[in-house]
Amino acid sequence: MAAHAFTFCPWGYVRVGEAVLKFYSLYLTPEKADQLIWLRARVHTSRAKGKQCFLVLRQQQFNVQALVAVGDRASKQMVKFAANITKESIVDVEASVRKVEQKIESCSQQDVELHIERIFVVSQAEPRLPLQLDDAVRPDTEGEEEGRATVNQDTRLDNRVIDLRTTTSQAVFRLQSGVCQLFRDTLTNKGFVEIQTPKIISAASEGGANVFTVSYFKTSAYLAQSPQLYKQMCICADFEKVFCVGPVFRAEDSNTHRHLTEFVGLDIEMAFNYHYHEVIDSITDTMVQIFKGLRDNFQTEIQTVNKQFPSEPFKFLEPTLRLEYTEGVAMLREAGVEMGDEEDLSTPNEKLLGRLVKEKYDTDFYVLDKYPLAVRPFYTMPDPNNMKYSNSYDMFMRGEEILSGAQRVHDPQLLTERAMHHQIDLEKIKSYIDSFRFGAPPHGGGGIGLERVCMLYLGLHNVRQTSMFPRDPKRLTP
Amino acid sequence: MAAHAFTFCPWGYVRVGEAVLKFYSLYLTPEKADQLIWLRARVHTSRAKGKQCFLVLRQQQFNVQALVAVGDRASKQMVKFAANITKESIVDVEASVRKVEQKIESCSQQDVELHIERIFVVSQAEPRLPLQLDDAVRPDTEGEEEGRATVNQDTRLDNRVIDLRTTTSQAVFRLQSGVCQLFRDTLTNKGFVEIQTPKIISAASEGGANVFTVSYFKTSAYLAQSPQLYKQMCICADFEKVFCVGPVFRAEDSNTHRHLTEFVGLDIEMAFNYHYHEVIDSITDTMVQIFKGLRDNFQTEIQTVNKQFPSEPFKFLEPTLRLEYTEGVAMLREAGVEMGDEEDLSTPNEKLLGRLVKEKYDTDFYVLDKYPLAVRPFYTMPDPNNMKYSNSYDMFMRGEEILSGAQRVHDPQLLTERAMHHQIDLEKIKSYIDSFRFGAPPHGGGGIGLERVCMLYLGLHNVRQTSMFPRDPKRLTP
Repeated sequence: MAAHAFTFCPWGYVRVGEAVLKFYSLYLTPEKADQLIWLRARVHTSRAKGKQCFLVLRQQQFNVQALVAVGDRASKQMVKFAANITKESIVDVEASVRKVEQKIESCSQQDVELHIERIFVVSQAEPRLPLQLDDAVRPDTEGEEEGRATVNQDTRLDNRVIDLRTTTSQAVFRLQSGVCQLFRDTLTNKGFVEIQTPKIISAASEGGANVFTVSYFKTSAYLAQSPQLYKQMCICADFEKVFCVGPVFRAEDSNTHRHLTEFVGLDIEMAFNYHYHEVIDSITDTMVQIFKGLRDNFQTEIQTVNKQFPSEPFKFLEPTLRLEYTEGVAMLREAGVEMGDEEDLSTPNEKLLGRLVKEKYDTDFYVLDKYPLAVRPFYTMPDPNNMKYSNSYDMFMRGEEILSGAQRVHDPQLLTERAMHHQIDLEKIKSYIDSFRFGAPPHGGGGIGLERVCMLYLGLHNVRQTSMFPRDPKRLTP
Repeated sequence: MAAHAFTFCPWGYVRVGEAVLKFYSLYLTPEKADQLIWLRARVHTSRAKGKQCFLVLRQQQFNVQALVAVGDRASKQMVKFAANITKESIVDVEASVRKVEQKIESCSQQDVELHIERIFVVSQAEPRLPLQLDDAVRPDTEGEEEGRATVNQDTRLDNRVIDLRTTTSQAVFRLQSGVCQLFRDTLTNKGFVEIQTPKIISAASEGGANVFTVSYFKTSAYLAQSPQLYKQMCICADFEKVFCVGPVFRAEDSNTHRHLTEFVGLDIEMAFNYHYHEVIDSITDTMVQIFKGLRDNFQTEIQTVNKQFPSEPFKFLEPTLRLEYTEGVAMLREAGVEMGDEEDLSTPNEKLLGRLVKEKYDTDFYVLDKYPLAVRPFYTMPDPNNMKYSNSYDMFMRGEEILSGAQRVHDPQLLTERAMHHQIDLEKIKSYIDSFRFGAPPHGGGGIGLERVCMLYLGLHNVRQTSMFPRDPKRLTP
């Protein structure tokens, strides 16, 4: 059989002396019935039964049943050859599409099956897989209640190349790609300019804690904890409205469900005319466009993820709900929480407030505005009407913070005063303060964690599920 | 004058007790004549002359002449106040638009001027600027021939916040934003998925040279020299066609016009069906879409840059010219260069070949295909017909390399053999090789340097001109 030429050719797949055929997608419907098609797919499962071999072939989220049966077009040897192809191998098949009487419940393509006439192995998988794809998409509840196998997170992450092949992973990361695209398209339409900011920086701008050190030729440097300084420099350089998408690094030894040492920041910074609420409005509208785009264009992906990880649909209001910090504190106190006016929100209180807001306003997304000045960084603009508070805000999805932002102090004198108040070494932030000495417009912005947005939108419970190759204090591979 | 309330208010710009006015763009034409408008701009220059003060106001690439004259709406004190506003300060003005009889040659808005009725200082610049914007956009030739001041590169980069305000810089980085958008939109339309790859990695995959080391809690890690391994893992994980845009890091002590230690990689990887030329075609078509998009949508920016840095328009063919390496070598030999069949191209020979190709084919963009196997990395697929060559390619713009790529070896056994041939420690690349053990489709890709593409498209001569905050062995700031 010609198939062997493919299996053993050291440079993989070289078809010699044959006309080039069109490859079809495996997303097949009865309209294709009785056509002879050619496609490339993985062998998801195979099962020999007498003179027949049933395969399930898979392409990304889709799979279809395929049959090799002894007859005119297939020999006994060919059935045996097909039965011996290892799971996850990649094959090319020539097959006719046949409509089936009874829906094939176990496949995504339920109305057709393939009758294989030729099959070639393009790339052969080793016979022992470190995890089974069917186990990897099984809901935890089935595992617990019915005692069926599921795959734990470390096994998944250790074998990420295979884990990413599951329908759930395919859906998660296609949706993530969509979040980035919606974020950028919305901002580009609003007149924002995309910028590229350096990740290797000479000084740890925010005081020096939680920063990774890099050997840089004969000196040391750091990995940027955020692009904030550079976004602000672009505002001072008249780019007016900027965004960037890129990695940010946090050397925090936090081993929680929502912390990574490297994650993707979706960052915004903009000059405003009258009031920093112009910034909040731009950001919340961007988030709303993302939520709408996902709802309207990623239903297949959302439903695929929900099959394994059920969750309520994500709710949002238009315009976005904006509460003041004092209102949030009042709601918490009414629910029995004791806390001071200028105290920061603890993680449990954030979650509780999220539930209270959901009950009262029926939204999974809201802004908490005017944080106490004392709990925000030195560069946060104080509220001109009440120095106890500040022109700063956090945004929450399903009760978890996804963005922290503020109007920034753009006056070098006030910035110096605020830094001194925070006992920050002025020498270390000199170049930051100097950026504002040659005319700086009032401006504000914020940074969004991509992985958190995807996790919370989909109602998942661990940020590692929405990071392709997550980094935490204990994980550096693959 | 109310203006003082703005200048000294520590939280910057707060307008109290006044109706909110619409801010206009400074891109004004005679249609707006005799309207009273409100706008925010920088003071580009100011010049007092008797009872009048002439200002040039600037917004990004545009500027307009404005006049404060003693009369009904302005006092002597107001003219004096206006004359004392430092250059680069940000002001709000209320002014009426007036058509002018004679074009104002020194401004971008040549047909109108503004008659200022009110002026407020939003943010005051310090009086001594480290560089003058007019000097910073002067062509080098004028500096040399007419002895007028220009600004050297280190002064520019040391004071990047001001240098980025020039019309040239504004144009360069708006065009760069366009390159990223065109790259992504083209690939998204082709069915590619955007991925996010980690920058902190546990092992230096390509042998360990030229890699930055990071302290990672109690151990060490590295900064990724390219996302290649992760792109390939995504292909093995069935994403089929992927791209990413992000920083790449090279610890090379190269102080040249075209090397940076951190730059932005536009990376592509895709599975193919029949031949790796499918990959070349996807990449070259993407480049052509970028060139067309720039030509059609960024003429203002291109012409702005050309004023300071004259260059020939960028030429390209459709479809892209593809030469084989042996053809390139033959052209060089014909031009008198002595080189061996399996010798790599030196930088001067690359440039010379670029000139020869331009003469013969009239294109600034071409592909050189089938490099000698010996000069390519171990993971490069050999040419199945001639083991002296390989299924690999470089792409050139104006005679400089902007992309290096190849079909990758996807068979773990052949990969092991090739790594051993290159005397690479197999233990160090074990996880890389293991990625291919569970079925891997034939695939290829490449990485493009964003800054080089922008530099060469615009005919600039230093990659630092197209990196907002460049990093090289000697520069880590700002």
